[in-house]
Amino acid sequence: MSEAASPSHRTAGTCVTVALGERSYDIRIGTGLLADPAVWHGLPSGGDALIVCNPVVGALYLQRLKLALAARHARVLSVELPDGEEHKQWQTLNQVFDALLDHGCDRQTTVYALGGGVVGDIAGFAAAAFMRGVSYVQVPTTLLAQVDSSVGGKTAINHPMGKNLIGAFHQPRRVVCDLEVLKTLPDRELRAGLAEVVKYGPIADWPFFEWIEEHATALLARDSGALAHAVRRSCEIKAAVVAMDERESDVRAILNFGHTFGHAIEAGLGFGQWLHGEAVSAGMVLGASLSVKLGVIDVTVAERLAALLKQLGLPIQAPALGAERYLQLMRLDKKAVGREIRFVVLTGKGEAALRGASDAIVRNVIEAHHGA
Amino acid sequence: MSEAASPSHRTAGTCVTVALGERSYDIRIGTGLLADPAVWHGLPSGGDALIVCNPVVGALYLQRLKLALAARHARVLSVELPDGEEHKQWQTLNQVFDALLDHGCDRQTTVYALGGGVVGDIAGFAAAAFMRGVSYVQVPTTLLAQVDSSVGGKTAINHPMGKNLIGAFHQPRRVVCDLEVLKTLPDRELRAGLAEVVKYGPIADWPFFEWIEEHATALLARDSGALAHAVRRSCEIKAAVVAMDERESDVRAILNFGHTFGHAIEAGLGFGQWLHGEAVSAGMVLGASLSVKLGVIDVTVAERLAALLKQLGLPIQAPALGAERYLQLMRLDKKAVGREIRFVVLTGKGEAALRGASDAIVRNVIEAHHGA
Repeated sequence: MSEAASPSHRTAGTCVTVALGERSYDIRIGTGLLADPAVWHGLPSGGDALIVCNPVVGALYLQRLKLALAARHARVLSVELPDGEEHKQWQTLNQVFDALLDHGCDRQTTVYALGGGVVGDIAGFAAAAFMRGVSYVQVPTTLLAQVDSSVGGKTAINHPMGKNLIGAFHQPRRVVCDLEVLKTLPDRELRAGLAEVVKYGPIADWPFFEWIEEHATALLARDSGALAHAVRRSCEIKAAVVAMDERESDVRAILNFGHTFGHAIEAGLGFGQWLHGEAVSAGMVLGASLSVKLGVIDVTVAERLAALLKQLGLPIQAPALGAERYLQLMRLDKKAVGREIRFVVLTGKGEAALRGASDAIVRNVIEAHHGA
Repeated sequence: MSEAASPSHRTAGTCVTVALGERSYDIRIGTGLLADPAVWHGLPSGGDALIVCNPVVGALYLQRLKLALAARHARVLSVELPDGEEHKQWQTLNQVFDALLDHGCDRQTTVYALGGGVVGDIAGFAAAAFMRGVSYVQVPTTLLAQVDSSVGGKTAINHPMGKNLIGAFHQPRRVVCDLEVLKTLPDRELRAGLAEVVKYGPIADWPFFEWIEEHATALLARDSGALAHAVRRSCEIKAAVVAMDERESDVRAILNFGHTFGHAIEAGLGFGQWLHGEAVSAGMVLGASLSVKLGVIDVTVAERLAALLKQLGLPIQAPALGAERYLQLMRLDKKAVGREIRFVVLTGKGEAALRGASDAIVRNVIEAHHGA
């Protein structure tokens, strides 16, 4: 692994490999990558390209990417999807299929997901299903997508009954994280992305957690060097976990720390009310409390986690939906009919595991959280 | 390979293996298999089962299958989809997702596709996408599904722009071909299935073609021994081709003999007007004519093929949509924008290959066919 890219000039950046045999691919991280011809070398070329984006990202970066790809593809086409988690559903997915078919695209087409997690998930699933599978490249433009959702090949849309219930494991051919695009990211989105960055510390790398504590101000100030390190280390951890367990039969589940509570928050408030990262932030606080209650970690770990999230401007107080509503939503999310719901709990500093927890304990954690 | 099952009593039948490494599976062929407990051994059990069928098949066989599976699964649930190719689309697919989620099914669920090609394609794609992939078992109840669509892991729905444009390669865990259910198959469906049986002869096994010529009357009379051999030999050929080229990057394409013209017939008349096998029958006649025109096969092969299809009560005269409309539909089907359309042509007795053909030659073949 080479050193972090100097942030002050265009560079081929650093490279993290997701080792999955014939499905292996690189995550390229650097500043100005979008416009760097070298970044796209080795990807499928010759056929059509379809760039999937949303109006906000499109206005900022679509032309730049089109220009970068123009010489590589027969045609560089694009489609803009409505922005927001509430649009991560069938109708929006069908807009991608319609665009591909209206343009007469074939199996040689490469889909480029230019945007955040919603665009990446929809474009990735569209690539998985179009003509039973075409290539795609992730070009994440939010911090959250760069450090989490663009890596690992999970693609999906939501169903009214819950998040990400319909989708595919379909690995991208490359992930291109241009740190320069983070400059235009709204503050709220930046903070939401930092929630997923923080996540990697308690579950897998306590020194990284301490590094984030030390660099919280720099990260919020979008210090290029700090962001470059945060993205790279997050991608390294995610790549290592995915390489061990591509289809989440086992260890990959730890990446969902805070997500069971978080999904309940998102679904309970209505998709799009809280950003995913915000819900995960409050969800991690609950997950850490549960870990303390189960006696597997010391309360100081939970306190430091909450303090850091608060310092990063993230919510640490979950909405008061009522304990029963949380249980109902989480049972739905985990399909735990008649069984204990399983949670990712912290089992040490930089260690996590999947554990069942009785409704009584979970109710207790939620009620204590809300001072009931 | 053991001998064909005696048709007169319940039997574990013969077994054809689709060799795909860790995705390998068996095709079980025999009489009375649906109710035979031994047939289901070794499949995933413990979790829920969701049987997908349509009202016609459901009325005949749903209870039998439910009974056979009752001891193996936590719950045996079912959903009935509307019958017909015109329903092979999003809304119907969503009915399967809704059923799975309304019942609170989880990743341990096994989907059983009990029906013809439409049910198998939709249920298979639903299994591929539900929670990013659950197990499924094909229980084909039409001859066409038994000899073709249930084998090989191609799943899909149609798009208004063409057939099977959205889907996944997702191999079933087993294919269970109960020959007994063919007794209730309408004559028209039986004949449509025989079109796909016939297909295997000219593309891969000329002695099998001659066997069908000799047994045409027995097949139409639903002679159990003849049907058993037809299903088994068809599955053997399909399994061998799929094992060589699971994702159709190469040789698997020969299985589409007659299908480029056939898809144009189906789309041109409106999905559901002609049965798929009927369209393939007339499509194979055109495909053979094209092969003769390209000089790669003797006219007597084309004549024998047409004579056999006619004897089986299948259409050998394609509808007169006009040559330009055919070209337009086939270009759409093959996404051959600005390029020659590629066809499966016969290159010998029991040999086929993919070849480009100019619009002029194709127009000529269609116009000669309609006596223009």
